[in-house]
Amino acid sequence: MSFIVERLTIIGVGLIGGSFARALRQAGVVKTIIGVDRDISNLKQAQSLGIVDEISENPCEGVRDADVVFISVPVCSIPAVVQQIAASLGPGCIVTDGGSVKAGIVSCCERLIPEGRHFVGGHPIAGTEYSGAAASFATLYKNKRCILTPTTDTDPTALALISHLWQSTGADVCSMDAQRHDRIFAEISHLPHMVAYSLVHAVGTADAEGEDILSYSAGGFRDFTRIASSDPAMWRDIAIMNHTALLASIDGFSSSLAVLRASIEQGDGEGLVDFFTKAKCFRDGIK
Amino acid sequence: MSFIVERLTIIGVGLIGGSFARALRQAGVVKTIIGVDRDISNLKQAQSLGIVDEISENPCEGVRDADVVFISVPVCSIPAVVQQIAASLGPGCIVTDGGSVKAGIVSCCERLIPEGRHFVGGHPIAGTEYSGAAASFATLYKNKRCILTPTTDTDPTALALISHLWQSTGADVCSMDAQRHDRIFAEISHLPHMVAYSLVHAVGTADAEGEDILSYSAGGFRDFTRIASSDPAMWRDIAIMNHTALLASIDGFSSSLAVLRASIEQGDGEGLVDFFTKAKCFRDGIK
Repeated sequence: MSFIVERLTIIGVGLIGGSFARALRQAGVVKTIIGVDRDISNLKQAQSLGIVDEISENPCEGVRDADVVFISVPVCSIPAVVQQIAASLGPGCIVTDGGSVKAGIVSCCERLIPEGRHFVGGHPIAGTEYSGAAASFATLYKNKRCILTPTTDTDPTALALISHLWQSTGADVCSMDAQRHDRIFAEISHLPHMVAYSLVHAVGTADAEGEDILSYSAGGFRDFTRIASSDPAMWRDIAIMNHTALLASIDGFSSSLAVLRASIEQGDGEGLVDFFTKAKCFRDGIK
Repeated sequence: MSFIVERLTIIGVGLIGGSFARALRQAGVVKTIIGVDRDISNLKQAQSLGIVDEISENPCEGVRDADVVFISVPVCSIPAVVQQIAASLGPGCIVTDGGSVKAGIVSCCERLIPEGRHFVGGHPIAGTEYSGAAASFATLYKNKRCILTPTTDTDPTALALISHLWQSTGADVCSMDAQRHDRIFAEISHLPHMVAYSLVHAVGTADAEGEDILSYSAGGFRDFTRIASSDPAMWRDIAIMNHTALLASIDGFSSSLAVLRASIEQGDGEGLVDFFTKAKCFRDGIK
């Protein structure tokens, strides 16, 4: 067995960071994994579960002598972490992240990384509704996409190594421009979350006026609104970080809803069937 | 075993009508079930599966000598069916329906039913994504709600019998005003469908411009938009029949989305957390 990374530091040993560690250890490609987390009980649990070999509460200490640093903290905190650790990174060290918004993070982090060290933006498309090191598992990324967002400034060797690591977790790795990434995820992930939160907000507000509406909700409503149970702080970060693409997506959605509303108001049965059929075709076309 | 209904006619032997027949037969409360359907192959299949005893393609013939008639056809067709069969209903016959919109249907049908015959509006809160007699099963209504919407003109004996039949299927039966029913279902069922169709419509439209967006959609998007695969003709009927309550629900939703959009545009992190937390509390409060 040959290691491709001697020392890997993971900052934020939760579901994402913990699963990355477990998958790489299982693949036998990393020799030593150092865990860094602000939550000491989570960190000790990660160590006792064998997810990480060494632990540190201090990011600067944790990244010393690391070959690769993976940052898996909430998206708005990623640039701050890079700023904090920048001076402690050894020559040739590669920093990468798992944030679900990319353009702002990549441009910030490229500026913050010192000469001779490298940054590669990444986003594994995987997750569950659970969080914390104990919720992590080695197969989280198996057959899931991982998107890397290199720029013209990205070091090709660093990109190849991060790509190799993600492939070792079982992920299908692809690359794209960070702006394109953010437009796509605004549409297929961030917008649906905003819509789900708004729907439950609206129905709950109507319910608060005394109709006891939510007690009549059947499985469909529960399934449809499950994502409105997601972590508010995480979605605050994503909404703020990706506001440009997200506002455009919300406006596109509002335009579609306005077309539908007009057909309902006019009793336009043909228009309604056209609208629903077009949506159904898009939906049924998803593999 | 004592039958509470000698002859039950089901007009529209699909998932809803077929499951009603199967459940009542299993409960042993109905002696003879007559199936009426425009689709003769579906009707013959219902007979060969033992769901119905006798079949007819002619509603007027099918309801002759029936004690109870259950109409489970698309909501916009229910008044037309009642109009068609009205003159063929025997004295004391009770007509009921399974339509998911109630105010318009109930007021129409009460006017159409001749003296000495009765109408009771109903809506079983159950379903699957499948349709047709072959998709029906005896336990569809078990522990599901069935809402009856009597008016001041509803015959109490007729109401009690229809309530008894639904209880025999295993459903939890409750009664409410038809307008209240329509407001509640506009919020928790019809609005979510309009939102899901609009979301897929918007994302699909953006995708049609060459981003290949939908290929990146993960499980969350698929789960969230599953209801946009529903039958366009069925939802056209519901949107038209319940347009008053539905337009109010859409406007309430749009107001919530506008609040959220403003917080995103202003980068108001506190406002975003408040909004998401309020929605999450409503969502997590659903039993």
